[in-house]
Amino acid sequence: MKLKEWINKRLPDIVNTLEENITGSFEVHAEDGLDLAGRNDIYEVLDYLLAALFPGCYAKDAMIKDELNLFLGDVLRHVSYRLAKHIRETFKYRCLKDKCDDCSCDQRSEEALIHLIESLPRLRALLLEDIQAAFEGDPAAKSLDEIVMSYPCIEAIATHRIAHSLYELDVPIIPRIMSERAHSKTGIDIHPGAEIGPRFFIDHGTGVVIGETCTIGRNVKLYQGVTLGALSFPLDEHGKPIKNIKRHPDIEDDVIIYANATILGGDTVIGKGAVIGANSWITRSVEPGAVFYGTSINGELRGRNNE
Amino acid sequence: MKLKEWINKRLPDIVNTLEENITGSFEVHAEDGLDLAGRNDIYEVLDYLLAALFPGCYAKDAMIKDELNLFLGDVLRHVSYRLAKHIRETFKYRCLKDKCDDCSCDQRSEEALIHLIESLPRLRALLLEDIQAAFEGDPAAKSLDEIVMSYPCIEAIATHRIAHSLYELDVPIIPRIMSERAHSKTGIDIHPGAEIGPRFFIDHGTGVVIGETCTIGRNVKLYQGVTLGALSFPLDEHGKPIKNIKRHPDIEDDVIIYANATILGGDTVIGKGAVIGANSWITRSVEPGAVFYGTSINGELRGRNNE
Amino acid sequence: MKLKEWINKRLPDIVNTLEENITGSFEVHAEDGLDLAGRNDIYEVLDYLLAALFPGCYAKDAMIKDELNLFLGDVLRHVSYRLAKHIRETFKYRCLKDKCDDCSCDQRSEEALIHLIESLPRLRALLLEDIQAAFEGDPAAKSLDEIVMSYPCIEAIATHRIAHSLYELDVPIIPRIMSERAHSKTGIDIHPGAEIGPRFFIDHGTGVVIGETCTIGRNVKLYQGVTLGALSFPLDEHGKPIKNIKRHPDIEDDVIIYANATILGGDTVIGKGAVIGANSWITRSVEPGAVFYGTSINGELRGRNNE
Amino acid sequence: MKLKEWINKRLPDIVNTLEENITGSFEVHAEDGLDLAGRNDIYEVLDYLLAALFPGCYAKDAMIKDELNLFLGDVLRHVSYRLAKHIRETFKYRCLKDKCDDCSCDQRSEEALIHLIESLPRLRALLLEDIQAAFEGDPAAKSLDEIVMSYPCIEAIATHRIAHSLYELDVPIIPRIMSERAHSKTGIDIHPGAEIGPRFFIDHGTGVVIGETCTIGRNVKLYQGVTLGALSFPLDEHGKPIKNIKRHPDIEDDVIIYANATILGGDTVIGKGAVIGANSWITRSVEPGAVFYGTSINGELRGRNNE
Amino acid sequence: MKLKEWINKRLPDIVNTLEENITGSFEVHAEDGLDLAGRNDIYEVLDYLLAALFPGCYAKDAMIKDELNLFLGDVLRHVSYRLAKHIRETFKYRCLKDKCDDCSCDQRSEEALIHLIESLPRLRALLLEDIQAAFEGDPAAKSLDEIVMSYPCIEAIATHRIAHSLYELDVPIIPRIMSERAHSKTGIDIHPGAEIGPRFFIDHGTGVVIGETCTIGRNVKLYQGVTLGALSFPLDEHGKPIKNIKRHPDIEDDVIIYANATILGGDTVIGKGAVIGANSWITRSVEPGAVFYGTSINGELRGRNNE
Amino acid sequence: MKLKEWINKRLPDIVNTLEENITGSFEVHAEDGLDLAGRNDIYEVLDYLLAALFPGCYAKDAMIKDELNLFLGDVLRHVSYRLAKHIRETFKYRCLKDKCDDCSCDQRSEEALIHLIESLPRLRALLLEDIQAAFEGDPAAKSLDEIVMSYPCIEAIATHRIAHSLYELDVPIIPRIMSERAHSKTGIDIHPGAEIGPRFFIDHGTGVVIGETCTIGRNVKLYQGVTLGALSFPLDEHGKPIKNIKRHPDIEDDVIIYANATILGGDTVIGKGAVIGANSWITRSVEPGAVFYGTSINGELRGRNNE
Repeated sequence: MKLKEWINKRLPDIVNTLEENITGSFEVHAEDGLDLAGRNDIYEVLDYLLAALFPGCYAKDAMIKDELNLFLGDVLRHVSYRLAKHIRETFKYRCLKDKCDDCSCDQRSEEALIHLIESLPRLRALLLEDIQAAFEGDPAAKSLDEIVMSYPCIEAIATHRIAHSLYELDVPIIPRIMSERAHSKTGIDIHPGAEIGPRFFIDHGTGVVIGETCTIGRNVKLYQGVTLGALSFPLDEHGKPIKNIKRHPDIEDDVIIYANATILGGDTVIGKGAVIGANSWITRSVEPGAVFYGTSINGELRGRNNE
Repeated sequence: MKLKEWINKRLPDIVNTLEENITGSFEVHAEDGLDLAGRNDIYEVLDYLLAALFPGCYAKDAMIKDELNLFLGDVLRHVSYRLAKHIRETFKYRCLKDKCDDCSCDQRSEEALIHLIESLPRLRALLLEDIQAAFEGDPAAKSLDEIVMSYPCIEAIATHRIAHSLYELDVPIIPRIMSERAHSKTGIDIHPGAEIGPRFFIDHGTGVVIGETCTIGRNVKLYQGVTLGALSFPLDEHGKPIKNIKRHPDIEDDVIIYANATILGGDTVIGKGAVIGANSWITRSVEPGAVFYGTSINGELRGRNNE
Repeated sequence: MKLKEWINKRLPDIVNTLEENITGSFEVHAEDGLDLAGRNDIYEVLDYLLAALFPGCYAKDAMIKDELNLFLGDVLRHVSYRLAKHIRETFKYRCLKDKCDDCSCDQRSEEALIHLIESLPRLRALLLEDIQAAFEGDPAAKSLDEIVMSYPCIEAIATHRIAHSLYELDVPIIPRIMSERAHSKTGIDIHPGAEIGPRFFIDHGTGVVIGETCTIGRNVKLYQGVTLGALSFPLDEHGKPIKNIKRHPDIEDDVIIYANATILGGDTVIGKGAVIGANSWITRSVEPGAVFYGTSINGELRGRNNE
Repeated sequence: MKLKEWINKRLPDIVNTLEENITGSFEVHAEDGLDLAGRNDIYEVLDYLLAALFPGCYAKDAMIKDELNLFLGDVLRHVSYRLAKHIRETFKYRCLKDKCDDCSCDQRSEEALIHLIESLPRLRALLLEDIQAAFEGDPAAKSLDEIVMSYPCIEAIATHRIAHSLYELDVPIIPRIMSERAHSKTGIDIHPGAEIGPRFFIDHGTGVVIGETCTIGRNVKLYQGVTLGALSFPLDEHGKPIKNIKRHPDIEDDVIIYANATILGGDTVIGKGAVIGANSWITRSVEPGAVFYGTSINGELRGRNNE
Repeated sequence: MKLKEWINKRLPDIVNTLEENITGSFEVHAEDGLDLAGRNDIYEVLDYLLAALFPGCYAKDAMIKDELNLFLGDVLRHVSYRLAKHIRETFKYRCLKDKCDDCSCDQRSEEALIHLIESLPRLRALLLEDIQAAFEGDPAAKSLDEIVMSYPCIEAIATHRIAHSLYELDVPIIPRIMSERAHSKTGIDIHPGAEIGPRFFIDHGTGVVIGETCTIGRNVKLYQGVTLGALSFPLDEHGKPIKNIKRHPDIEDDVIIYANATILGGDTVIGKGAVIGANSWITRSVEPGAVFYGTSINGELRGRNNE
Repeated sequence: MKLKEWINKRLPDIVNTLEENITGSFEVHAEDGLDLAGRNDIYEVLDYLLAALFPGCYAKDAMIKDELNLFLGDVLRHVSYRLAKHIRETFKYRCLKDKCDDCSCDQRSEEALIHLIESLPRLRALLLEDIQAAFEGDPAAKSLDEIVMSYPCIEAIATHRIAHSLYELDVPIIPRIMSERAHSKTGIDIHPGAEIGPRFFIDHGTGVVIGETCTIGRNVKLYQGVTLGALSFPLDEHGKPIKNIKRHPDIEDDVIIYANATILGGDTVIGKGAVIGANSWITRSVEPGAVFYGTSINGELRGRNNE
C-alpha cells in the first residue's frame, strides 16, 4: 500500500520541517502564541469561573446543594492555581519581548489573580441586575431562570465582566482569549476594554460588535447586529494604524439601540435615554432623549428626531 | 509563596460567601435556573435526539448498520429517562413558583415525553422534506448528503421541530434551552413558539432571528441575517412589557426573503409567493406575489412592487 | 410507573420504525450522509490539522518544545490514516451514486491526502502572512500572538486553506463539512471553492458569507457581516437552479470592504484598491481605487465615488 | 538529539518488522489470539454481567433504585450485542481452524448468548445461597452485605457460574478468559469446566486451584491455597499429554478442606462430610465422614482417620 | 435476525425480573450491599488516601513539587466529603438493620472521618519506618525508593493502617472493603482488626493471611504464604460459629516467620525474637528466642528448638 | 455542619503538614520514589510494550489488520519518548544520590531504550516458544490462542523478558516496578535479575517466587506456589544483609517442579531433567534426572531418588 510506505518514509521529514517552522518562529515573533501555552486550558479556566457564578448552567454535572461548597472550593482552588500560572506566563512573555529587566511580574500576576477571585461575589451581584433587566426588557421571557439558562447575552456579559477585570489590571492576551471564546459561542463580540454599566441587556445578539474604547452607561439595551465601532483610524508615518487612542462611541444611560444599527467613532455620544432605530448608520452624536431612525450616510444625521 | 497562603487562608471565605449568595437567592427568584439542574445534561439529551434522527451526523462515533438498532435503542431509552426527569422537574418548579396545589405534573410530564418520542419518525420525515427543499434551493449543493452534513439550517430546523413539540405541550424552559443551543452553534435564533411549515430552508443563516409568535407557511426560503421580529411592544401600567400577545409577522407559502431583510410586527403578513429583497425593512404587509426590495423606513413601503 | 412500562413495551417498536426509516432511505438518497460515516471524526481530523499548524492554540493540552516532534508525528500519522479513509469513502460513495465503473478512487484519494499533508508547511507560511496582515490592519491588536490566539478569522482562514486544498482535488463533501465547522465556531461562512490570496484579514467576522465562485486577491480586508454572494441564479427547464456556473464577485488586490456590505453577482468586480463603505449594496462592478459608500438599490450605483 | 533521529529513521523499520511478525503468524497458529479480537472487551462484558447481578459492587457508579431498571436494560442490551459477537467470532474461528464446512455457528452462538442471559436470575439466586453459606461459615463475617462487598470468593464463584454456563454450551476460549480474569483479581483459579454445587464457600482464597474435570457437591468449604489438581497425566505416542480425560478429584457434599491442602487425581473422591486438614497431601480417596490431616506422601494415606 | 427480535421482545422481561430480584431482597437482607452504594467509589477514596501518603506512586499523573499542595488539598477535600458520606451511610444502614432508635450516627461518622484525616501525617511517619525495615530486611532492595515503588507489602500495610483506623472507630464494612482491595492487588490478606506494630515487613507476600484478632509486635518480618489463622472455632447451639472471640495468634517483637508457615489459634503466642521456619505448622506457643522449623502435626511441636 | 467548617478551617493545615512531610523527606532519602515521578506512567508504558507484542490481548480496543501498522507505530513512538524520559530520570536520580560527577546518563539511557525497542521482535519470537511449551505442557489447553489469552504466565514471562532486558543495562528501579506489576496481576513474582531460558512455562502460577540470582535453563516447567529462594543471607558487621551475592538456586534444562515446592540457596542446583514433587523442601542440589518428592527438613534430602 502506497500510503503506508509514504507514512513511514516521507512523513517523518514533513514532521521535522513543520517542527522547525514552528520552533524557528518562536524567537522572532512567536505566532503560535505564548510558547505552546495551551489555549484550551484558558477556555477551561473560563468555564470554571462561569460555573462558580452559575453552577446550574455551567457546571458539567448537575449537583445538589450539599455539594455546592465542595464544588465551589474545588473550582476556585484550581482556577487560582492555573490562572495564576497563565497570568504569570503572559506577564513574563511580554517582559521577554519588551526586554524589561526589572519587572515585578510575579507579584503583579498574583495580585491580578487575587483581585479577580475576590471580586466574584460582586460580579455575581452585578450579573443578577443584568438578568433582571433582561427579564424586564423582553416580553418573550417567562422567568428569570429562563434568562440565565437560555439568553446568550448572559454568557457574553459574564465573560466580559471577568475579562474586563483582568484587562484593567493590564493582563496581556488572556482577556482577549476569553472575550473571543464568548464571541464564538454567542456571536456577541465585546472587546474586554469596553466599560459597561449595570443592567446591560442584548437581545438575540448575533453580530453585535462592541469596540475596545466604548463606554456604555446604566440600563442600556441592544439588539442583534449592533456595531459600536471605529469610524476610521489614523495611520502613523509608516502607514500603520496608531494604537491606543479613543476610537469607539460612548453610550449613555437608558439608551436602546435596535437591530443592525451601526454607531461609529470615538467622538460619537448617544445621549441619555436616546432610542436608535434598526439599521441606523450613525457617525455623529445623538442628543439625549432623541428617537433616531433611518439611514445616516456619510456622517450627517438624516433620520427623524423625536420632536 | 503569597498565593498559596491566600488560597489556604482567604479562599475558603470567598467560597462560603459565594455559596451563600447562590443558595440564598434560590428561595427568592432562583436566578441560577432550576435549582442547580445541569443545563449540560439537557444539551446532551438534545444531541442524542438529533443523533436518533441523523446518526451519521450527530452520533459521537461512526457506526455500521448492524449496530444501528442497538444505538437507537440506547439513545431513546436514555433520552426517555433523562428528559422525563427534566420535564418533571421543570413542571414542578413552575408549580412551586405558582403555588399551584392541585396539579398533574407527573402525568403531564410523562405525556409530554412520550408524545415527543412517538413523533420522532414523523419529525424525520418532515426534515427529509426540508433537506429536499434545500437541495432544490441552492445551486452550490452537490447532493442531499452534503445538505445534511454541512448546512447549519438542518440542525437549527431539527432542533426547532423538537423544541416546538415540547413548547406546544407547555413544557417550561427546556424548549428555550434547546433553541438557544442551536442558536449558539448555527447563528440561527428561532424561538420554539414559532410555527413553521414543511420544506423550510435557510441559507447560510448567521444572524437570522424568528420571533415567538411568527407563523411560516410551506416552502419558505430565508437567507442570512433575516429578522422576523416585533415592531414594538405595549407596556403595562408599570411600564413593563405585556407578555403573551401576537408580536411577530406571518409568512405565507412560497415566500423568499433575501439576506438581512427585517420584517416586523404582529399584523404584518407577507403574502403567498412574495419575494423580499436583501436589506429590506418592512413593517407593513406585503401582497401575495409581490416582489419587494428597497428600504422601508418608518412603516411605509417604499420598495418597488412587481407590477 | 407508566413511563417504565412504555419504555419496555412500546419503545422497541419506535426504535425499529426509526431504524427502518434510516436504513430504508440509504439506497434511495442517503439523507443521513455517507452511510453513517461519523461527521465527528472529520471534525476531529480538522482539529488535528489545525493543531499541527498552531499547536499552542489547537492542541488539547499545553506542551513543551521537546514534545513537539512527538506530537506532530502522532497528529500527522493519525490524520493521514483517518483522513485517507474518509476521502476514499467519499470518492467511492460518489462512484456508487454515479454508477461509475472504472474509477481510480483508491489512487486519487491517496494522492489527495498526500498532497494536503505535504502542503502543510506552505499553508503555515501563508497563514503567517495573514496574521501579519491582521496585525497591521487592526489598531486593537497588541501583538502577533494575540492575533493567533483570539481572532476568529485565523481559524476561518486556516480551515479554508485546508478545505480549498481538498476542494481543488475534487474531494466530495469533506471540504464543505470543514468549512461549515469553521462557520459554526466563527460565524464566518467561506465556501471551500472560493479562491483567496495571501494577507487576507476579516475583522470580527460574524455574518460574513463568501460564495463558491468568488475570487479574492492579495491583501484584502473585510469586516463583519460582509456578503460576497450571488445576485440571482438561472433556473433550468424544470425550474431548478443550474449548478456549476460563475455566480459570485471577484475582489481584486488591496480592497477594503466595511461591515455589512453586500456585493453580489458573478460579473461584479471590485477593482484593485477600492474601498467599499459599510452597509453598501453593490451589484455592479466598482472601479479600481474607487471609494464607494452608500446604498445601491436595484443594481445601479448610487454611492459617492472618490473623485 | 540521537533519540529523535532514531525514532524518525529507524523505528519505522521495527514497526514494519513487528507488524509482519504479528500478521505473519496469523495463518499458521494465530498466537495473538482471535485475530486481534480485543480481550479487554470481553473483560468489560464480564464486568457488566457481574454488575447486572450485583450492581452495588460492580457498577462503575452508585445508583438509586429508580435508575436500576434503566441500568439493567442498558447492561443486558449491550452485553447481548457484544457477547453475541464475540461468541460468534470464536465459533467461526474454531470452524476455520478445524476446516469445518457445514457448521451452525451463527445459530449456536445466538443460542449460547440467549441461554446465558435467560439464566441470570437463576444464577443470582444460586449466588445468594453461596453468600448465605459464607456468612454461616466465617465467624469474622458481620453481615451478608460484608460478604458481597469484601469476600473475593463471591467474584470468583459468580464468574465461574457465568463461565461454566458458556463452557457447557461449548463456547471456545471466552470461558477461560473470564475465569482467568477472576484468577487475576482474587488469586482463585477455577477452570470453567469444573462442576460446582450450591452453597460453595472459599475463605481468603489466594492460591486455590480447581481443575477442569473436578466435581464439587453441595455445601463445600475450602480455604486458601487448596489445590484440586491432576496427579499426573498420560502422554500419547508423541510424548504429548492426552487431552479431554478425567484428571481431577470429586468432592462430595459437606466437605471442608483446610488451607494449602493438595488433592490430586481423577479417581480421588473425598466422601460426603469429610474434613481435610491444612497442608494435607492426598492422592487417594477419603471415606465419607473421615477427618483427615497429616501429610500423605507418595499416594498412601498416613493421616489419622476419625474412628 | 433472531437475536435482535429477542432483545426487543424478551429481554425487557428479564430486565424486570432481575430488577425485582435485586430490589426485592433489599428489605430482607440486602445482599447487594449498602443499597446500591457503589463500591467503586470506596476504592477511589482509598486510592486517593494512598496518593495523599505517596503521591509519586498512587497519583494518576506525575506532578511537580509546586503542584503538590494543590493536589493534596484537592485529594483531602474530596476524600473528606465522599468518605464522610460513605461512613454516614454505613452507620445508618446498620442502625436500620439493628432497629436502633436513638443513635448518634451523624456525629460519629464525622468524628471517624476527621480522626482518620488528622492521623494521616502520623500514618505516613509510621510507614516510613516500615519502609526502612524492608530495606534493612531484604538484600535485593537497592534503595528506599525501590521499596516504595515496587514492594507489594507497602500498599498492603498502608491500606491496613488506614482500614484499622476506621475499624477501631467501629465503622462498618468500609474497612473490610479496603483490606480486600489490597488483598486483590497484592495477594496479602490482612483483616482490618489485626493490630500491627511499627517496622512491619512482608517479603513477596502472595498468600499471606492475617486474621482479625491477631496482634503483631514491633519489627516483625513475614514471608509469602504465611497464615496467622484460627485453629478451629466453637459453634453456638444452632451450629453457627460464635463471633467476636479471640481466635488468632499473637506475634511478639522481632519475630521472623518464613514462607508458607501456618500459625493457628487464639492462645498461640510466638515469643519475642523467635524464628519460625518455612512450611512450619504451629498450633501451640513458641518460646521467646526459639528457632523453630519442621512440621508440627496435631498441635504438638516436633521441630528443633534452639538449645 | 461541623464537617464543612472543619474542612475550611482545619484541613488546610493538615494539607500543609503533609506537604512538608513529603517534600521534606525528598532530600534525605526520597521515600516517595523518584521525586513524584508517576509510577502509573511506567505501568502504562509496560502495557503499551505488551500491546506491541500481543495487540489482541493488551491493546485497549480491538483492531483490524489494516490499522495494525498505525497502532504499532503510535505505541512504539510513545513508548520510546516516555520510557527514554523515565530511564534518564532514574539514571540521573541515582547519580544525584551517588554524587557521581562524570556520568554518561543521557547517552546510557538512550542506548538502553533503543536496545529494548530493537529487541522486541526477538522477544516476541522467544515468547512464541514459551507459548508452544505451555500448549505441550498442559492437557487442559485447547489451542495456542487460549494460552495467550488466558494463561497468566504469559504476562508474567513477557514482562520478565522486558524487565530483564532493562536490568541487564543497569537501569535502576524501573525493571522492579515492571516485575511487581506482573506480580500484582498474576501472583507470579519473578525478580528482573533472574536469567530464564526459552520454552519456560508456569501453570496456574499464584505464589510463585523466583529470586534475583536464579538461573533457569531451557524447557523448564513450574507449578503454582513454587519458591526459588534464598536459604539465608549473611549479615555484614552492622547486622545488615550483604547485597549483590549469589543467593538463589540454578535450575537446569528440562526440569519440572510441582506445586508449592521450595528450593533454596545459591549453591543449590537442580540437575538437567530432574522432577521435583509438590510440597518438596529442598536446600541441597539434586542430581540430573532425579525424581525427588517428599519433605526435606533441615537441608538433608529425605525424598526418594529415581534409581
